[in-house]
Amino acid sequence: MAITITALAVHDVRFPTSRGLDGSDAMNPDPDYSSTYVVLSTDQPGLTAYGMTFTIGRGNELCCAAVQALAHLVVGCTLASLIADPARFWRRLVSDSQLRWLGPEKGVIHLATAAIVNAIWDLWARAAGKPLWRLLAEMEPDQLVGCIDFRYLEDALSREQALELLRANHAGKRERIATLAGVGFPAYTTSAGWLGYGDDKLRRLCREAVASGFDHLKIKVGRDLDDDIRRCRIIREEIGDGRKLSVDANQVWEVPQAITWMRQLAPFRPLWIEEPTSPDDVLGHAAIASALRPLGIGVATGEHCHNRVMFKQFLQAKAIDYCQIDSCRLGGVNEILAVYLLARRFGIPVCPHAGGVGLCEYVQHLSMWDYISVSASFEGRVIEFVNHLADELENPVRISGSRYWPTEQAGYSAVIRPAALAENSFPHGPVWRSASKA
Amino acid sequence: MAITITALAVHDVRFPTSRGLDGSDAMNPDPDYSSTYVVLSTDQPGLTAYGMTFTIGRGNELCCAAVQALAHLVVGCTLASLIADPARFWRRLVSDSQLRWLGPEKGVIHLATAAIVNAIWDLWARAAGKPLWRLLAEMEPDQLVGCIDFRYLEDALSREQALELLRANHAGKRERIATLAGVGFPAYTTSAGWLGYGDDKLRRLCREAVASGFDHLKIKVGRDLDDDIRRCRIIREEIGDGRKLSVDANQVWEVPQAITWMRQLAPFRPLWIEEPTSPDDVLGHAAIASALRPLGIGVATGEHCHNRVMFKQFLQAKAIDYCQIDSCRLGGVNEILAVYLLARRFGIPVCPHAGGVGLCEYVQHLSMWDYISVSASFEGRVIEFVNHLADELENPVRISGSRYWPTEQAGYSAVIRPAALAENSFPHGPVWRSASKA
Repeated sequence: MAITITALAVHDVRFPTSRGLDGSDAMNPDPDYSSTYVVLSTDQPGLTAYGMTFTIGRGNELCCAAVQALAHLVVGCTLASLIADPARFWRRLVSDSQLRWLGPEKGVIHLATAAIVNAIWDLWARAAGKPLWRLLAEMEPDQLVGCIDFRYLEDALSREQALELLRANHAGKRERIATLAGVGFPAYTTSAGWLGYGDDKLRRLCREAVASGFDHLKIKVGRDLDDDIRRCRIIREEIGDGRKLSVDANQVWEVPQAITWMRQLAPFRPLWIEEPTSPDDVLGHAAIASALRPLGIGVATGEHCHNRVMFKQFLQAKAIDYCQIDSCRLGGVNEILAVYLLARRFGIPVCPHAGGVGLCEYVQHLSMWDYISVSASFEGRVIEFVNHLADELENPVRISGSRYWPTEQAGYSAVIRPAALAENSFPHGPVWRSASKA
Repeated sequence: MAITITALAVHDVRFPTSRGLDGSDAMNPDPDYSSTYVVLSTDQPGLTAYGMTFTIGRGNELCCAAVQALAHLVVGCTLASLIADPARFWRRLVSDSQLRWLGPEKGVIHLATAAIVNAIWDLWARAAGKPLWRLLAEMEPDQLVGCIDFRYLEDALSREQALELLRANHAGKRERIATLAGVGFPAYTTSAGWLGYGDDKLRRLCREAVASGFDHLKIKVGRDLDDDIRRCRIIREEIGDGRKLSVDANQVWEVPQAITWMRQLAPFRPLWIEEPTSPDDVLGHAAIASALRPLGIGVATGEHCHNRVMFKQFLQAKAIDYCQIDSCRLGGVNEILAVYLLARRFGIPVCPHAGGVGLCEYVQHLSMWDYISVSASFEGRVIEFVNHLADELENPVRISGSRYWPTEQAGYSAVIRPAALAENSFPHGPVWRSASKA
């Protein structure tokens, strides 16, 4: 079946989440969770594919414009021509020599690349009639490696080394697919711990999380030390000693300050400190990790880590203990596969960033593939779960008992319900027309 | 005099340089040198200010749109309110919490930040009736340090350390201003060595460069090793042993490949290898630098280095021997000042990237300030010079005898002639209307 991509439409969709204080943290006081939402039309009746990148409001129009600037690289192509050599297709998307100047492979142009690449993978998986996790898991090691552009990785992960990692766990894949169906993939929740919430709400949400079966919670820190100590104490009171607590500073600290501050929170035994400082500061994270490791506190970062070259260095420098890929910040599935394999090579678990719009729906596929084909272990691996906007989606993740359950729906997407798309369309949807300002 | 910024206009200006092969290199085969060109209007008759960022064609519209997204942060402000606390003004421009998600401090949004910040400094210098280099040089150390946002720098350069560096050379400033007027600032030229040029043209341009007084040339390498060896041999034949040769790979190599390739070029004694690999790869550059240092070859990078946090790490990791700031890639003058001081603290000379549109006009001010106030030395310091588009500017740099000569014109700008602006305006200017495609 020859499938041709006949058109690409991009929608600027913004949910007015800043009107509550959902999602507030020390760096992002008032996000409006938004999607640069790509719809690919094809010449096959009923075959439409979806891709997105995630932003937090203003500037989403820039990502939409960048998608338009890249669209000619896929419109008119057959799916077969793109997936015949997936690494080459990806390289082509990041190699327009003039657009590359705007990154390279970072910022608006790379966020836009993610939206298009994600849509292509959705199309591929839909055409194959499989969820993405299964499409990936059923690939032979050399097919999978053929999806990865190894440019700039050779000093840390060669094609041959990647093949070796995949071959090592090739045998038990069927068994692990059955395990996933039986026990799901572990999740942790950030729903309780936003900075905008009062102590009573924090306490109530902790109880609800524990009652739902979560044994790992995360809270935001970094605005005020006394406040953080009080909130960590409350959460420990509520979740007890046996459950895990992680904390997230969203980049607000200097390197020495991160170390000092976290020493004060050490009595509450945080599993990791997330984004302690600038997301670009590999060496800074390495200094923090080395100071906190003796206290049993790991360092996590990645939601603002813009490409595989940065992740390579975080791993080489022993700067992270948990690798938090973002499915829309990296340039879509191809680059994400590279980072999972890099992390595996360095023995670091990947715990994807999620929440926002559509991120949970994306990362479930990635971590399930990781378990089946790469890591063969749940040890230290956990997917973030925040469910603010699940009602706006046609195909939200299935989560219960603090586990993600594998979907059997074909594709790789978070499909926004048509009514929600119309309602939250920026700037002309009803939600924004009535707003006093954007 | 209270000056209020009454309006900000942004122009998408693109020069069709790809129609020749000017500016071609291994990564950028067909650049159309472009400007995201900002014009600030004020309530003072005759007082207009200009700022820009540089791109190489497609995607310039994204930077223009990003400038629009940031414009409300300066329009309606008085100049006095912005320069009362310049570090705070800069922090405000990079801290819109929603727009920050698109970087942070990288890619399209940071390029746009540069255009606006550069325009504000032009306004400040014009209002003061001084060229930027003099405005900066005449500041007291604490005033200068007050222009810098030290966020994420404290582990490498504190405010106090920056003050100390400035105080160290405060005394001899007047003398060095006189020296600059007498001997100018040393330049090197890239005009001869673009990959698109044939051997005869290379030879002729080398002779012309030597005849003009240049004792330091740079050529592009990295497409084909035999070709590079031949071209290095030609250039050494033409310039002799006493002059300096640098080579520039524009990011085309893997880390191990960079080392192997450069060993082959070592007999031609290159002073530095520029952009050997991914511009994000601090640790990769460190590995290359450590392998090439025994051969007397330095490593240079920076034109794609997106912020001070990256430069901090290149310096901490001993990954660069020459620091090549880009006046439009970094977030304008405030951030550039930070990088010059960081480089000084680590004992590394700054040799700014230039060429393109307007970059020479910008960096002359920065390096002259460096000489007067920071380094007090020309040792190892040289400004790139490429003069493709000088005719399109009202105020091109003054260069003769391979030296930049200090301008006394007030401001910090590259002002595009009105006719050139109209002619090259994208997409409706005559140059682009007649083009078969953009």
